[in-house]
Amino acid sequence: MKNLTLKDIAAALDISVTTVSKALQNYPDVSEKTKERVKAYAEKVNFKPNSFAAYLRTHESKTVGIVIPRLNHFFFSSILRGIISEAEKHEYMTFILCSDESYELEKTQINRLLNKNVDGIFLSIADKTHNLSHIQNIMNKGTNLVIFDKYSKLTTCSSIVIDDQKASYTAVEHLIKKGKKRIAHFRGPLLPQNSIDRFLGYRKALEDHGIEYNKDLVFICDEISNREGYDHMQTILDKKLDVDAVFAVADLPAIGAIKCLIENNIKIPEEISVMGFSNWSISSLITPTLSTIDQPGELMGRKAFQVFLEERDAKKRKEPLVFKKYIIETTLIERKST
Amino acid sequence: MKNLTLKDIAAALDISVTTVSKALQNYPDVSEKTKERVKAYAEKVNFKPNSFAAYLRTHESKTVGIVIPRLNHFFFSSILRGIISEAEKHEYMTFILCSDESYELEKTQINRLLNKNVDGIFLSIADKTHNLSHIQNIMNKGTNLVIFDKYSKLTTCSSIVIDDQKASYTAVEHLIKKGKKRIAHFRGPLLPQNSIDRFLGYRKALEDHGIEYNKDLVFICDEISNREGYDHMQTILDKKLDVDAVFAVADLPAIGAIKCLIENNIKIPEEISVMGFSNWSISSLITPTLSTIDQPGELMGRKAFQVFLEERDAKKRKEPLVFKKYIIETTLIERKST
Repeated sequence: MKNLTLKDIAAALDISVTTVSKALQNYPDVSEKTKERVKAYAEKVNFKPNSFAAYLRTHESKTVGIVIPRLNHFFFSSILRGIISEAEKHEYMTFILCSDESYELEKTQINRLLNKNVDGIFLSIADKTHNLSHIQNIMNKGTNLVIFDKYSKLTTCSSIVIDDQKASYTAVEHLIKKGKKRIAHFRGPLLPQNSIDRFLGYRKALEDHGIEYNKDLVFICDEISNREGYDHMQTILDKKLDVDAVFAVADLPAIGAIKCLIENNIKIPEEISVMGFSNWSISSLITPTLSTIDQPGELMGRKAFQVFLEERDAKKRKEPLVFKKYIIETTLIERKST
Repeated sequence: MKNLTLKDIAAALDISVTTVSKALQNYPDVSEKTKERVKAYAEKVNFKPNSFAAYLRTHESKTVGIVIPRLNHFFFSSILRGIISEAEKHEYMTFILCSDESYELEKTQINRLLNKNVDGIFLSIADKTHNLSHIQNIMNKGTNLVIFDKYSKLTTCSSIVIDDQKASYTAVEHLIKKGKKRIAHFRGPLLPQNSIDRFLGYRKALEDHGIEYNKDLVFICDEISNREGYDHMQTILDKKLDVDAVFAVADLPAIGAIKCLIENNIKIPEEISVMGFSNWSISSLITPTLSTIDQPGELMGRKAFQVFLEERDAKKRKEPLVFKKYIIETTLIERKST
């Protein structure tokens, strides 16, 4: 049997839908007699008001939306799991939209969510986003916003991030402590802050340990793919560049580098060490296992949702919002590749 | 500036919210004069009716929900991407909920979606689901339902699946053609249809090629994990079982088996071949690369959404629904492990 709607009740009692709705919500402009009649009937037919009715009452939709740059991505899946599991605990439902790293699509997706009256938006900024007014617009419309992972210094909202510079510094320092001195970096694209910060951490670790920075040992991975890591490694070998370690911006390019080294019969880690970043599950499954930085995605997701709840409650109490940058700790994972 | 609501307009014009709503929707029981007044004001303040108002008008929420058993799962992520990308093309938004392979949670999630008045539900049945009345209830409520991947023969709705038995037969036949005769099977849990079908395909391939089925060579992977594959392989080696190939229900247990074989210095594929199932991206990244069956998840997701649209339209035309089982083709991917 289909769920009865306000319309069905209205038809049965020959009154307007609005009157039914108001009667059930005890509006003062409906007579007591009508209220009783509507409530008695609603009880008789076991009417359950749906969530739209609840929205009209509370002005909360109990939905949130997540916009992530990629769907098929281990790290974002972990964050999703964190946000969704926390959301479910608090009876929120979650829309997932994908920006495909595109600025235009990110704008569209945010507008869709605003149009759905979500109570909050969780966003990881697309690599191609070069203007932030659509993001600022979320706050201007009074919708809560929490940014995670890929953030910008120019947005005024809370964010959940890791300290990319510090984590990257730790990774490179680990290679240096293992005796490596000619460390190449497979960096990410030029725009995103986390890619910049990982590069800065790499450079600072070199400088602090008296190793001269050499820009010829830095290669860009625009797609952060396995293929790019493989190709850059092959370039290093072809050009006979003097390299004894590689620090990659993420695990996939690091895994590509390992594949290339194995095919060229180069010993890992004796001749060339490889260090990743993120600790995707695959990094413990390949041979040799990959040393990397663990980024606790699920924890970041859970924290993001908790921050949303705090800001929601502060708003209800009409308190001014104080935006914070929450830094989630990362851990160095040492495995066979270093 | 916050979006204006019906309530704001009502306050500005000193009339009821209902009257505003009805006026904007051209209800006959509102006077022409009031309609003009409301519309003029709405235009002046650039009022955009929100999606709830649209729902009240069309009885379509333009939202759908997906319930999947696991979030951190490469294959389900591909299906999600297929459904979401197709949904976005048709301006639907997508709720994602996770059943964690639990029957109870699956019921809860479905009820949440029904309560949100989604236009359709996409479901992959949890491993622990032993009773289907909550699934039948979706159809009874008049909500469209499409099942993908993990289905049951007992539900009356359309489903998008692969022919697990045939795919598994192809995989085992491939091993036999490579000269393997003592083929172990790391199967999935006992309940899910796809785990049963993959097992049946394995057994049939053996029988058709005159190889006696030996139940001692079948091991259950309840979690379908890397760890289980590793442990079962170690058991085979410890017990000195006469095995020259392993066919695993999924790539992760196959990768666990490979890890165990490498650690025991057993040559792959010369001494023991390993065959996976699903073609996760990791299967082409490990050494040796893993032979497997490609399951096109994104294609399955897109097809699922298309079937939803067809059934939605048939319903609008008041045509009876004809449920179908759509079978998506799989492909054998031969790599170094066989």
